[in-house]
Amino acid sequence: MSPVSVTTYIEVKTFYALQMRLLDALDIEGYAATFTEDGVTDHAHRGEKVVGRAQLIAGANAALPRYANGAVRHWNDHYVIEEVDENTINVSYCSLVTRTDKAGNVTFEPTFFIEDVLVRVNGELQAKSRTIHRDEPSPVAIAAAAAREGAA
Amino acid sequence: MSPVSVTTYIEVKTFYALQMRLLDALDIEGYAATFTEDGVTDHAHRGEKVVGRAQLIAGANAALPRYANGAVRHWNDHYVIEEVDENTINVSYCSLVTRTDKAGNVTFEPTFFIEDVLVRVNGELQAKSRTIHRDEPSPVAIAAAAAREGAA
Amino acid sequence: MSPVSVTTYIEVKTFYALQMRLLDALDIEGYAATFTEDGVTDHAHRGEKVVGRAQLIAGANAALPRYANGAVRHWNDHYVIEEVDENTINVSYCSLVTRTDKAGNVTFEPTFFIEDVLVRVNGELQAKSRTIHRDEPSPVAIAAAAAREGAA
Repeated sequence: MSPVSVTTYIEVKTFYALQMRLLDALDIEGYAATFTEDGVTDHAHRGEKVVGRAQLIAGANAALPRYANGAVRHWNDHYVIEEVDENTINVSYCSLVTRTDKAGNVTFEPTFFIEDVLVRVNGELQAKSRTIHRDEPSPVAIAAAAAREGAA
Repeated sequence: MSPVSVTTYIEVKTFYALQMRLLDALDIEGYAATFTEDGVTDHAHRGEKVVGRAQLIAGANAALPRYANGAVRHWNDHYVIEEVDENTINVSYCSLVTRTDKAGNVTFEPTFFIEDVLVRVNGELQAKSRTIHRDEPSPVAIAAAAAREGAA
Repeated sequence: MSPVSVTTYIEVKTFYALQMRLLDALDIEGYAATFTEDGVTDHAHRGEKVVGRAQLIAGANAALPRYANGAVRHWNDHYVIEEVDENTINVSYCSLVTRTDKAGNVTFEPTFFIEDVLVRVNGELQAKSRTIHRDEPSPVAIAAAAAREGAA
């Protein structure tokens, strides 16, 4: 795997800018169209896998009422973009998710780490798979805290 | 409209990095200088339009005391950058706004979606207009929640 | 100083994506390896300077237990990247820091402004120095509030 060209880097960043806006606008059909027909979203942290656009759309429609109380926004950072082959790109990044209610109050969902595989189909990028990991307190820190506790 | 060159992409990202720092440092004159002389800021969500640098500076000076209790920071994401012509660039993005008080506590303003028109004047980018939309809960989600409520 | 090439811009952004992940994964050895052997971290806001990898590693190990209750994430924005010479790059940026606990609740550390000097060693970027400034309410806004108070 190798770092992508600057052109591909910006193509990928723009893909996410547009895809995240569709997601946050709750444009379910538009968001589903940014995945391949057989695209997979794997919510690894809750062992739930959504396979194909039809299932993605059905699940998102069922979840729609949950967003009535707040506008959702995803804030991504730390993109690492790697070329697997000419038409396959691995992208990983972190995501902070906000909800802004009618009064303007902002609340937060947990933070996440995401691993995507993008493919170029007829010259356009699409997501072939998305694997979502919820951030958890570090086992290393937990062990260090327990060791200190034991030593105290 | 077409996507910009990689050089322009980075020129635009750097314009925002510098402009947002001037804004967050409350450097009012410096911030105003990143707009054209007749530059417009349209707070679409509250029907308030600021026209020209003089009005921008007067309004910002009047608002200054509101920032005594916390350092403000804008966190932007999902830039879409499009070339209208050689010297005109449309840029849109999302913005999360924090305030950090003396004790280090962080609070949040509502989230926003912003649409700018940048122009190149003597080789330097300036903002000709900025339209700010406050994020609101999605009508689609509200309708879905109401429909479910009705069906229950 | 001059703006960097597009290739260097993306090289620098990728350096931070990887470095911030090592930091947030509490991979202390990995994070220390992104600094030069004599690399300095200056917590300017609390007058504390960490000099060299060994001291960095010792300090980070001592701080580990503090992270047992939440996964930390740094969210950076407004990178300004300037070339000092062929192998020296000045980078500055803002940072928002979250902690996500076991239940998924997110809390915030103060926001920061950071100034780094990166050097290219055997073709790879490393941090030679990092100076961290905690955001404080603006003296300009405090003076404006006091003046208004006095006038009232």
